[in-house]
Amino acid sequence: MFDDLRHAATRHRATRALRRLQIGCKRLLSASGELGGMAIGTEMVDLVEEIDNESLDAFFGFLASAFNPDPAEVLRRAQAYADDPSAAKLIALYTAAEPPRQELLRRLNRTPGGTAAVLRLRRELLRRQPRRPDLAAIEADFLHLLSSWFNPGFLQLRRVDWNSPAVLLEKIIHHQAVHAIDGWDDLRRRLQPDRRCFAFFHPQSRDEPLIFVEVALLPEMPAVIGPLIDKKGTPLEPERFRVAAFYGISNCEPGLRGVSLGNFLIKTVAMQLQRELPRLKTFCTLSPMPGFARWVLGGPDLDALPALRKGMADELREALATLKALCGGDLGALKGHAVHERLGAAGEAALRLLARAYLLNLSPTPAGDPVARFHLDNGARLERLNLHGNMSSEGLRQSFGVMVNYVYDLDKVEASHDRFRRGEVAHSRAFGHPH
Amino acid sequence: MFDDLRHAATRHRATRALRRLQIGCKRLLSASGELGGMAIGTEMVDLVEEIDNESLDAFFGFLASAFNPDPAEVLRRAQAYADDPSAAKLIALYTAAEPPRQELLRRLNRTPGGTAAVLRLRRELLRRQPRRPDLAAIEADFLHLLSSWFNPGFLQLRRVDWNSPAVLLEKIIHHQAVHAIDGWDDLRRRLQPDRRCFAFFHPQSRDEPLIFVEVALLPEMPAVIGPLIDKKGTPLEPERFRVAAFYGISNCEPGLRGVSLGNFLIKTVAMQLQRELPRLKTFCTLSPMPGFARWVLGGPDLDALPALRKGMADELREALATLKALCGGDLGALKGHAVHERLGAAGEAALRLLARAYLLNLSPTPAGDPVARFHLDNGARLERLNLHGNMSSEGLRQSFGVMVNYVYDLDKVEASHDRFRRGEVAHSRAFGHPH
Amino acid sequence: MFDDLRHAATRHRATRALRRLQIGCKRLLSASGELGGMAIGTEMVDLVEEIDNESLDAFFGFLASAFNPDPAEVLRRAQAYADDPSAAKLIALYTAAEPPRQELLRRLNRTPGGTAAVLRLRRELLRRQPRRPDLAAIEADFLHLLSSWFNPGFLQLRRVDWNSPAVLLEKIIHHQAVHAIDGWDDLRRRLQPDRRCFAFFHPQSRDEPLIFVEVALLPEMPAVIGPLIDKKGTPLEPERFRVAAFYGISNCEPGLRGVSLGNFLIKTVAMQLQRELPRLKTFCTLSPMPGFARWVLGGPDLDALPALRKGMADELREALATLKALCGGDLGALKGHAVHERLGAAGEAALRLLARAYLLNLSPTPAGDPVARFHLDNGARLERLNLHGNMSSEGLRQSFGVMVNYVYDLDKVEASHDRFRRGEVAHSRAFGHPH
Amino acid sequence: MFDDLRHAATRHRATRALRRLQIGCKRLLSASGELGGMAIGTEMVDLVEEIDNESLDAFFGFLASAFNPDPAEVLRRAQAYADDPSAAKLIALYTAAEPPRQELLRRLNRTPGGTAAVLRLRRELLRRQPRRPDLAAIEADFLHLLSSWFNPGFLQLRRVDWNSPAVLLEKIIHHQAVHAIDGWDDLRRRLQPDRRCFAFFHPQSRDEPLIFVEVALLPEMPAVIGPLIDKKGTPLEPERFRVAAFYGISNCEPGLRGVSLGNFLIKTVAMQLQRELPRLKTFCTLSPMPGFARWVLGGPDLDALPALRKGMADELREALATLKALCGGDLGALKGHAVHERLGAAGEAALRLLARAYLLNLSPTPAGDPVARFHLDNGARLERLNLHGNMSSEGLRQSFGVMVNYVYDLDKVEASHDRFRRGEVAHSRAFGHPH
Repeated sequence: MFDDLRHAATRHRATRALRRLQIGCKRLLSASGELGGMAIGTEMVDLVEEIDNESLDAFFGFLASAFNPDPAEVLRRAQAYADDPSAAKLIALYTAAEPPRQELLRRLNRTPGGTAAVLRLRRELLRRQPRRPDLAAIEADFLHLLSSWFNPGFLQLRRVDWNSPAVLLEKIIHHQAVHAIDGWDDLRRRLQPDRRCFAFFHPQSRDEPLIFVEVALLPEMPAVIGPLIDKKGTPLEPERFRVAAFYGISNCEPGLRGVSLGNFLIKTVAMQLQRELPRLKTFCTLSPMPGFARWVLGGPDLDALPALRKGMADELREALATLKALCGGDLGALKGHAVHERLGAAGEAALRLLARAYLLNLSPTPAGDPVARFHLDNGARLERLNLHGNMSSEGLRQSFGVMVNYVYDLDKVEASHDRFRRGEVAHSRAFGHPH
Repeated sequence: MFDDLRHAATRHRATRALRRLQIGCKRLLSASGELGGMAIGTEMVDLVEEIDNESLDAFFGFLASAFNPDPAEVLRRAQAYADDPSAAKLIALYTAAEPPRQELLRRLNRTPGGTAAVLRLRRELLRRQPRRPDLAAIEADFLHLLSSWFNPGFLQLRRVDWNSPAVLLEKIIHHQAVHAIDGWDDLRRRLQPDRRCFAFFHPQSRDEPLIFVEVALLPEMPAVIGPLIDKKGTPLEPERFRVAAFYGISNCEPGLRGVSLGNFLIKTVAMQLQRELPRLKTFCTLSPMPGFARWVLGGPDLDALPALRKGMADELREALATLKALCGGDLGALKGHAVHERLGAAGEAALRLLARAYLLNLSPTPAGDPVARFHLDNGARLERLNLHGNMSSEGLRQSFGVMVNYVYDLDKVEASHDRFRRGEVAHSRAFGHPH
Repeated sequence: MFDDLRHAATRHRATRALRRLQIGCKRLLSASGELGGMAIGTEMVDLVEEIDNESLDAFFGFLASAFNPDPAEVLRRAQAYADDPSAAKLIALYTAAEPPRQELLRRLNRTPGGTAAVLRLRRELLRRQPRRPDLAAIEADFLHLLSSWFNPGFLQLRRVDWNSPAVLLEKIIHHQAVHAIDGWDDLRRRLQPDRRCFAFFHPQSRDEPLIFVEVALLPEMPAVIGPLIDKKGTPLEPERFRVAAFYGISNCEPGLRGVSLGNFLIKTVAMQLQRELPRLKTFCTLSPMPGFARWVLGGPDLDALPALRKGMADELREALATLKALCGGDLGALKGHAVHERLGAAGEAALRLLARAYLLNLSPTPAGDPVARFHLDNGARLERLNLHGNMSSEGLRQSFGVMVNYVYDLDKVEASHDRFRRGEVAHSRAFGHPH
Repeated sequence: MFDDLRHAATRHRATRALRRLQIGCKRLLSASGELGGMAIGTEMVDLVEEIDNESLDAFFGFLASAFNPDPAEVLRRAQAYADDPSAAKLIALYTAAEPPRQELLRRLNRTPGGTAAVLRLRRELLRRQPRRPDLAAIEADFLHLLSSWFNPGFLQLRRVDWNSPAVLLEKIIHHQAVHAIDGWDDLRRRLQPDRRCFAFFHPQSRDEPLIFVEVALLPEMPAVIGPLIDKKGTPLEPERFRVAAFYGISNCEPGLRGVSLGNFLIKTVAMQLQRELPRLKTFCTLSPMPGFARWVLGGPDLDALPALRKGMADELREALATLKALCGGDLGALKGHAVHERLGAAGEAALRLLARAYLLNLSPTPAGDPVARFHLDNGARLERLNLHGNMSSEGLRQSFGVMVNYVYDLDKVEASHDRFRRGEVAHSRAFGHPH
């Protein structure tokens, strides 16, 4: 019974928070809210912090329905603009067509603590995303505004090294997404003179990285991830640096999903390293293929692969059969270590064939590998397959150990990006032609 | 003849720059430009730096005409949204109604050096503003985007003091707009412990203030500007601070005109001072009335003053007559020092009556005093007239020496702003009722 | 045979280094060396870095014999000063009596890298100390000069916290001497808001602490070390801080042994904390007694204890016997955990009696506990015995688990230090009178 | 009468301060003072701050008489050391021969604020210096200790530029000794990219320079001071830097007179510039000759000039006569501008002859030019006379407009310093041989 009472009290508070948030939105959008709403905005920031899940569902529903342009008004103004496409009519049209929600979010963002509240809402929104198609227009507004605000011109790029405050390094350890940092000793190795780490920071929080990239400076393009993340490696002397290999890029703020900071980060860092170390010739990655094993094991519809050369589907089917035989009937064995020792030339050729098709043919489609799509859309090119790139259990699980190098040639990234948008995948001659 | 040749060469280069800028815009908006256009964007930043006045005129014409929404398309989508106001239709509508120019400027802004180029374009645009109504829609786009980007959440508020780098202080001296800083000694006095100076900075330029405010910490609300800007004054002991008087607010970046940073700056500084010095009771200004003398001498249409109490127009006319008589027939004499010594009670009452009408009745109209409109729109209230606030030649010229205090009561600014938008002017009881 | 050759070559190089060092000393002391010897000094710094052990032995012998005052000359001047004790005669005397070695070291210290070379020499010297009485005069010169140079007025006191650079924190972990820091998580706990860490730094190396002290802010004087160094403890709220307990002080530079920085560090930190947190009432330590177990087990000559009250020697002998019985005949069992569970009131009283005698009576003698002698000489007083202060295996091994609090009462430290020099040990009333 | 009373009260306070200081000295030297005397030392620091001139006279008398070694004791120990020159006897001797005053000052220096108090005492001591030969031994102690403490290894060398805090730059303006800085605009020119300014700082005061040097980076060795200190000059492009000319070195702390920081500053800066700008070929000065005019007008005893070539005294007498004739009988006219326009070849040759003798022959003697003695003792060489180096009224007054370049050749400074101590003056071939 006490529990019931407590539950009722909690619900009451939550309902009240929801109601106050709704009132806050209205007031923030009224004239009084124009000032950046010291009082209103601050209350809203606090409410966003406290509100529970259920009320948030309702709140998003409210946001989705209450702040849309008036269809009749927009139609009238669109007609007026069609009749007379003047500056005045255009301004009137645009003003009516922009969802008032955007101004609401802009005002919230101007409040002290407002940016954090906007990011929190976005994180919650993304969690609800596939289930709630009614929230698509809100999400479009959030993404539109966050992309405009979080642009490199308003962020700070800073190097992270062993002289950085521990409070920052701790967050780097925490957020490392690609190859987990195993404590401080591991981090230390990654901040040695032949390693670099750069991060974008929001102007008001010196110790909260938004995204960071890890770079190894090497004599040649790396084929295997092990030595790059080995705790005990000895640093290379600077005069031997020829290649900068990006081996990890990690987003720290899930509320910024879809805001393309990674692309800018890689290129800005490449330009900065090039200036500092003129001997660097190659900017590349050593990248995982996180969807490859799943694709192979899922029984891919090879005939449906885009841009497939004639007869190639059969070759791929044959490769699958070869591998299956070597695995004793269960392709899943490729996730284990043992089978790789007896693959032989035929097995390796088969694996290579499948990996190339996966990257070259599938990448331009939404089903393509996410890492491949990220780098190819950034304008990088496929450079080299590395069959035994990552033989750790995680590497075997994701991609049977295969890794791939992408190369960033800054003079060509724009053209390659362009072509990728048209469905063409840039690749080195050595990588081989599309099938 | 050589001159002709040289002129031709210059024109040729300019024409070429214009053509390249136009091509650049198209490319930046194409798929290749999506990456933040390292190459394209960088070229455009350089071109914006170099282009001459004439080509800029043409370029703005191009911007105004080439990047507008397609009227037929917008109309079609507005119709679809009117038929079915769903999220999908809304997104389609908004996407079509937003001028592509905005995306163009967002991409330019992402380029290294892009923000400075956008600001430069805005400065040039504002210089052309009243003459070129065809550029109104571009200006709306610029203001829309700059307001979104330059919001306090993405800027840094920092105190400026005698420990600040000389390179920054030099800019403070240069940009002081209200009461010119007469060299380093003068600045030094304004950075003593009983003075404060705060500025907003863009995250990437530590030494370029965007806007700054000067504050005097005082035992009571100041009536006269002299002691506040006196080079030789002795600092007040901190335990006597009761009033924070904002006596100068200066914009350093003309390209940000209309982006309301001043409002945020004053309030953020007030909150910060309140925290640091809990004994502060009053946050006020000592402000000029830059349009008062011009209004009086211009022969104001007193009957048209809004919200005028019955019979007041006659009282104001009488006051004008009284002053004119004291001036020996020429009201312009009020800009001199001599006449003020013999104004007497009647003259002062007349001047006061006119000043109150100017502030209380005229402020809500576009013809109102710009400083009054700034503070009242921020939610401050008129607190006290100071007849001999600034008897310097500049003070006499602008407002016959009259100055005014506005008070910022943070608990009331939102309500006051609201009322000001509806035409009501907040004021203290002592200031007197509107006429 | 190759080995012989290689050995010969090495010896040859070492002999050469020694010879060059000897020549360098002579030149550095000549007129040319007066300039701080850019060339000579720099070579010497390098040689000190390289020289091997054997040559160093010889070099110290050279230093000890070649740079002493001329006995005849000093005698002559001492006679002259005795005849006429004027300023001129005094200067002449002092100049002759100061070993030229001191000027040599001062010149070396002025060279870039010189301070590090001097410290390295001192470390080597200390390692040879008990075996080489002939080096006593050199050691006196080193200590004399280092004490003069490394005084708090020329050092920087800085707080170390979680915002400090990782490169510095790593050294703190490395040098922790008293209660080993078990990695970064442990360090992090020790840098929480209810813990403080302060260090002295040499002006030219921001990341090399010379000595640091760890402080816990607590509601009362601690009796047990466990909670102070517990990785998982929850920080205390600041309004409950009443006691600052120094629980670890670590020297990082062995070359500074005997230079009393610890004393200054503790007192400066105490004053700084007092200013920052006026509610702090007590500044104390929780200190080990590293020599206690050895003293008890070594069969102390109780009759020889200084200042022993009549009859007390017998009481102490009885206490030893009681403990021995409880230990089943072997006092060494007190280093184990088991026996402590059955000590009972009698056993604890016996242990307490011995511990008090060890601290109160033995401390003023050179055989006294080094930690006790450090704090008592600093002017602290014995405050409280904590029988079960540190029941870790290390604590049991050193002192059968006993720890002690010293209290620093800044108003009384000078008087207490004075009395300690005369053989009296300051202690609280509660601690009990000397036996 | 009131005045008498007030005077009596003041004297009473002063006498009391003196007495307290004397007691403080005794206590600081006793065992209690060994701790750095938080209480005693702090009181002494305050008293040194307050004490009046008369009491200070007495206090120095006290310091000079009360803290000397005991003549009998020293003699006894000197005898013991002569009998047995062992380490133990040496330590005993040295301990007895060092004036206890040194330990007193070391303890004062360890107190918070102590270094400033020591420097204040030294400034006062130096002001009394020529008049009070009885204070010579104190002065020797002060200089001995300050030279040991203020050595480059314990100071910080930092570049001063336009990014430095205004509070520091203000002090640079204030202390400029050689060519006065005429306000902030002038300073700004001296901090342009083709100018450098470096200063030594005490580790605890970031904004108080101890000594600073101004450097101009030039295409060739400068002959005239004007362009170097011209406010309006345009900075030279960095690729044309070949010569670094030290044109001003200023001590900011008179209490450090005789502590040779200038020598280290020049050489450290030269090495640093050499590393940064490898194209620099020459490190030189453009220096005044502040005593030249006084020497010429004082009727120099030419026959007494050391190392004068035979017959040269007559040549110099002739040169004096020539100049006197050109001046119309009064050599003082050389301080005016007019006479220089009609000097002609003969007059210039005469002036040059005298200037060379003044620098080459007189410099090794105590009567030599102080600037010359500073640079020559640093190991620089005379490089070139510049007859019209500084035709400002100050330049004419000091040296009839003549300036001189010294060159610092870092490979040779030690040898040159050595030779200078033996009376030889290093000079370029072009400068001419000594007469």
